[in-house]
Amino acid sequence: MTIGLDMMGGDFAPLEAVKGIQLYLSETGDPAILLLTGDEAQINPLLQEYSIPASQVKVVHAPQVIDMHEHPTKALREKQQSSIAIGFHLLATGKSDAFISAGNTGAMLVGSMYSIKAIDGVQRPTISTIIPKDNGKTGLLLDVGLNADCKPEHLNQFATLGSLYAQYILGIEKPRVALLNIGEEEGKGNILAQGTYPLLKENTEINFAGNVEGRDIFLDKADVMVCEGFTGNVILKLAESFYEITHAKSIRHEYLDRFNFENYGGTPVLGVAKPVIIGHGISHAKAFSNMIKLAQKMIDTDLMAKMKASFEGQ
Amino acid sequence: MTIGLDMMGGDFAPLEAVKGIQLYLSETGDPAILLLTGDEAQINPLLQEYSIPASQVKVVHAPQVIDMHEHPTKALREKQQSSIAIGFHLLATGKSDAFISAGNTGAMLVGSMYSIKAIDGVQRPTISTIIPKDNGKTGLLLDVGLNADCKPEHLNQFATLGSLYAQYILGIEKPRVALLNIGEEEGKGNILAQGTYPLLKENTEINFAGNVEGRDIFLDKADVMVCEGFTGNVILKLAESFYEITHAKSIRHEYLDRFNFENYGGTPVLGVAKPVIIGHGISHAKAFSNMIKLAQKMIDTDLMAKMKASFEGQ
Repeated sequence: MTIGLDMMGGDFAPLEAVKGIQLYLSETGDPAILLLTGDEAQINPLLQEYSIPASQVKVVHAPQVIDMHEHPTKALREKQQSSIAIGFHLLATGKSDAFISAGNTGAMLVGSMYSIKAIDGVQRPTISTIIPKDNGKTGLLLDVGLNADCKPEHLNQFATLGSLYAQYILGIEKPRVALLNIGEEEGKGNILAQGTYPLLKENTEINFAGNVEGRDIFLDKADVMVCEGFTGNVILKLAESFYEITHAKSIRHEYLDRFNFENYGGTPVLGVAKPVIIGHGISHAKAFSNMIKLAQKMIDTDLMAKMKASFEGQ
Repeated sequence: MTIGLDMMGGDFAPLEAVKGIQLYLSETGDPAILLLTGDEAQINPLLQEYSIPASQVKVVHAPQVIDMHEHPTKALREKQQSSIAIGFHLLATGKSDAFISAGNTGAMLVGSMYSIKAIDGVQRPTISTIIPKDNGKTGLLLDVGLNADCKPEHLNQFATLGSLYAQYILGIEKPRVALLNIGEEEGKGNILAQGTYPLLKENTEINFAGNVEGRDIFLDKADVMVCEGFTGNVILKLAESFYEITHAKSIRHEYLDRFNFENYGGTPVLGVAKPVIIGHGISHAKAFSNMIKLAQKMIDTDLMAKMKASFEGQ
């Protein structure tokens, strides 16, 4: 198993990426080989400094970097020697089995769609976030920003993708999938929610649990919650800010700590044909380590094959 | 000044309403006359028990009650002797200057639209919520559920209504009005947000502050934030649940206490021609007292006239 990692992505690259590799290797019994893309001159000394065994990593030199604020499509086209472009090339050509970056999110999404492509039948790949439930369990919310305008069929597909992710990666058997809505009963909500409910009810790939409301998001009412990417993105950023605000006010509690999204590493792009994981720009060592573990789990469980099977014939 | 109050609305009516009246009268220098609708046989003994001066209240007997789960339009039509229907009648005919209920929200909204009607030029009345900012200030978010599907022009009108409310009721001079969005720059967001931004930019009735994101909602980036009622309702209920979850976990802090929405009383229906305030079903004495104070402030500041002036010629 070979996992590609962009060493130049994120605010603290490449140092935190190297520290993340060290952490990953120290915590993993049967670690993957890591294929590192980025500037050799910066990476190699750090790999030595942090005593990363040469047998576990291979550096593929990438002389260019796509900055956080560059236009994704333009940057990917013009910087074909960038760590992200080369990382996607390695994934697309089978040299790696997954690709991770905490760099330019837009470029990661564009690369996912155009270098790797969506699974046959998937109309819109999606990104999700982990939701810490009040009883200690973990749920999934999607879409959280990739698809700001959606049709009912898109949300229905997010439900299938999210359900498989919850089952194989979060380890939840028969995940309860709910529609995020502004009322409990069928027929409530905006036009999109009203149109989505019957599709979810008929979706045999999921275990539909009806509507959940804003007050239920952090309760254990459902394992997977679907919404369009506008509402989902607002919720994600609001939840992140809750951690930051309470932390700044020195309000401490293990429940609040679970809103520190660095713990979760990054978000996979669900619905593309190979494992792609996008990290937060502020990723530190732990986030990098967790992203590598997540990629490994996605490969180990053969999640992509499960998703392809679900969408066959659609 | 005469303020109408539905004594039968809410889970703890009429007892908590009476206790709320007592609290209001004890805390207010120049209290309004209160016109109470509901079941005399239940109300009068409580008024005596809580020593409410007869000079301050007048009971208008209403033999019927609209339950929390009744269909609003049907209930209002069939129960014309209900405390809500009579309350609206008193407001519509000028016997009272405001009407408050913690009862059936839908019936309160239907009554607002059909008994009182929208201000000329207002396409969609709206409901808002108070947002506790991390620095101790208070903001406003609207719409929070009355309008699940919106057009840009609706959000633009919410901006004007919210700005006037923030100015005259929250006491914020030149309120900064922002568009809730999923990116900072103009052009970001879903189709609705993209269409709304230019209207807000050109709206001379407001002080437009650009986009805010989910992470900014509880920060002091803007005083008034506008969105459609789907996202707004999810945020409102999520914020309420944060208080409940942290409270249940015994996480205590004065900042978290500000998420106890009972402190704020209720939400006015903005954009209708007279002051109408809807309370939470679980309203206790403090919430009732705060709702009466809010109604008094809306009358004192002549907020309705300010709103009418803003929409003249539109």
